[in-house]
Amino acid sequence: MNIMQAALPNHVLISEVGPRDGLQSVSRTMATADKLRWITALYDAGLREIEVASFVPAKHLPQMADAAEVVQHALSLPGLTVMALVPNRRGAQSALEAGVHKLTVPVSASAAHSLANVRKTREEMIEEVSAIAALRRALAPQAKLEAGISTAFGCTMQGEVPEDDVIRLAAQCVAAGADECGLSDTVGYANPAQVHRLFRRLRAEIGDKAGAAHMHNTRGLGLANCLAAWDEGVRIFDASLGGLGGCPYAPGASGNVVTEDLVFMFEAMGVSTGVNLAKLMAAREPLQAGLPGEPVYGMTPEAGLPKGFVQRAAYA
Amino acid sequence: MNIMQAALPNHVLISEVGPRDGLQSVSRTMATADKLRWITALYDAGLREIEVASFVPAKHLPQMADAAEVVQHALSLPGLTVMALVPNRRGAQSALEAGVHKLTVPVSASAAHSLANVRKTREEMIEEVSAIAALRRALAPQAKLEAGISTAFGCTMQGEVPEDDVIRLAAQCVAAGADECGLSDTVGYANPAQVHRLFRRLRAEIGDKAGAAHMHNTRGLGLANCLAAWDEGVRIFDASLGGLGGCPYAPGASGNVVTEDLVFMFEAMGVSTGVNLAKLMAAREPLQAGLPGEPVYGMTPEAGLPKGFVQRAAYA
Repeated sequence: MNIMQAALPNHVLISEVGPRDGLQSVSRTMATADKLRWITALYDAGLREIEVASFVPAKHLPQMADAAEVVQHALSLPGLTVMALVPNRRGAQSALEAGVHKLTVPVSASAAHSLANVRKTREEMIEEVSAIAALRRALAPQAKLEAGISTAFGCTMQGEVPEDDVIRLAAQCVAAGADECGLSDTVGYANPAQVHRLFRRLRAEIGDKAGAAHMHNTRGLGLANCLAAWDEGVRIFDASLGGLGGCPYAPGASGNVVTEDLVFMFEAMGVSTGVNLAKLMAAREPLQAGLPGEPVYGMTPEAGLPKGFVQRAAYA
Repeated sequence: MNIMQAALPNHVLISEVGPRDGLQSVSRTMATADKLRWITALYDAGLREIEVASFVPAKHLPQMADAAEVVQHALSLPGLTVMALVPNRRGAQSALEAGVHKLTVPVSASAAHSLANVRKTREEMIEEVSAIAALRRALAPQAKLEAGISTAFGCTMQGEVPEDDVIRLAAQCVAAGADECGLSDTVGYANPAQVHRLFRRLRAEIGDKAGAAHMHNTRGLGLANCLAAWDEGVRIFDASLGGLGGCPYAPGASGNVVTEDLVFMFEAMGVSTGVNLAKLMAAREPLQAGLPGEPVYGMTPEAGLPKGFVQRAAYA
């Protein structure tokens, strides 16, 4: 841990993305009632930010056709920040009308991935962020707007992604009206040295608007990359229960960081997550019941907690 | 990375423990010819320290009955440090007579694990280290002697292991004649904050005699723990091809850190390992041929290397 750590909070926000990033990468569609049950279980475990849906045309992602209904349920859970992904202003309008607390807009640092994922150039996406920020001001000024720079650590189509591109886009997102901007390792190419460099540059460029680390575990480095981000002062981490998820437009990009393992890592380090590990593991049941046979990952659920491991009493 | 890093080498030694730690935890016995083929493949990939066997009575570990023959083969590979585990002076004598370059002696920090693993108290094990050091001086003064503090981060029998016990034992091992002393997370309980603390204290206590980090991936934190150890100046890392391994006397302790993922992490970070990743992945073939059906792990072999990832030309 570097010297800077002393000034930073000793707690993190785990932003659960399974109901969006996870489910959208699974070919089958989870029934709405099962989604609601799963989201409630995640909330009961102590998660206080959940990306519950993606507002995209149902013909593209039938898994997300019930987005408004899912948001409505999530809004009934007190203290939960209800988040949705929106690729464009149309999606943003629907999401804001549905009442979400926070929008996240993916902006690809890779030109090739941008076209494949949202059929827009990177410059067009910055305009989209700007339009979404204007909509937010008009419709729901209290809602938060996050931009997530996807393929920030490399791209299965383009290969290497210049770090200057990533930092420039992040600054443009903030200038366009985003409240925070995070970095996503969409395809699992990141390594800890790169995570150190990029989050350090991000903080130097946009200060406190530097947002979440969204890491995938494609090559097993997910938690190591989260640790590197933590060391750079990152305090928001995306993760997916059971490691569900990936990116349908980035071949070979499988598996978000597993929420259970990430929460265990931080709690074992003495970093507060607000999440009760026993209840978190219990939240795998509704996920598995809603998608029978779908593979779920995670080493901590399989191995169990260490003997004598005691979780903070506050998470009852 | 902390400030101290600037003064430290930008390369690591990956110490492959699969032929010992891996094979001894598998119930079946790999045929000697298969072991030799596997060890050659590991060597061909660039690994320059391999723990090839354990010198223990064959009735306890039939998997290791061919230890002397395996050592003889490994000694034929130029530049390879041939290492063997020895639990006591009798094993050390056989290993030194077989010609190994380096002995490793496990010393449990957990009193309960010490009795279960080697049927000796921790104090008796320090005496054993002393006797082995005397034997080494008499029989093969050029051979190196390493002590590995097992269950240094917790124990499935005892639960928490006091950090003072770990550091005291390490100092006693060095005083008894060990050239270096490493720390082992035998049962996969370690977390990065603890790894930082313990390796920092180890270095403060025994200086340059601080040795390898031996991490397991039981709860998915293996690479994050290696990264924390790297940040504390550790430059020797144990790992097992395909994540084979565990500890037969520590229930639930499965899986060494996967060599393929660890090498990928360091190489991607720009840290030299001397290991050719393509050849390393090819070394899974003789492992799997020698133990058909045995599960092997590793995310990097499954996902492949990132597009545009180029390995140092020097590792041809």
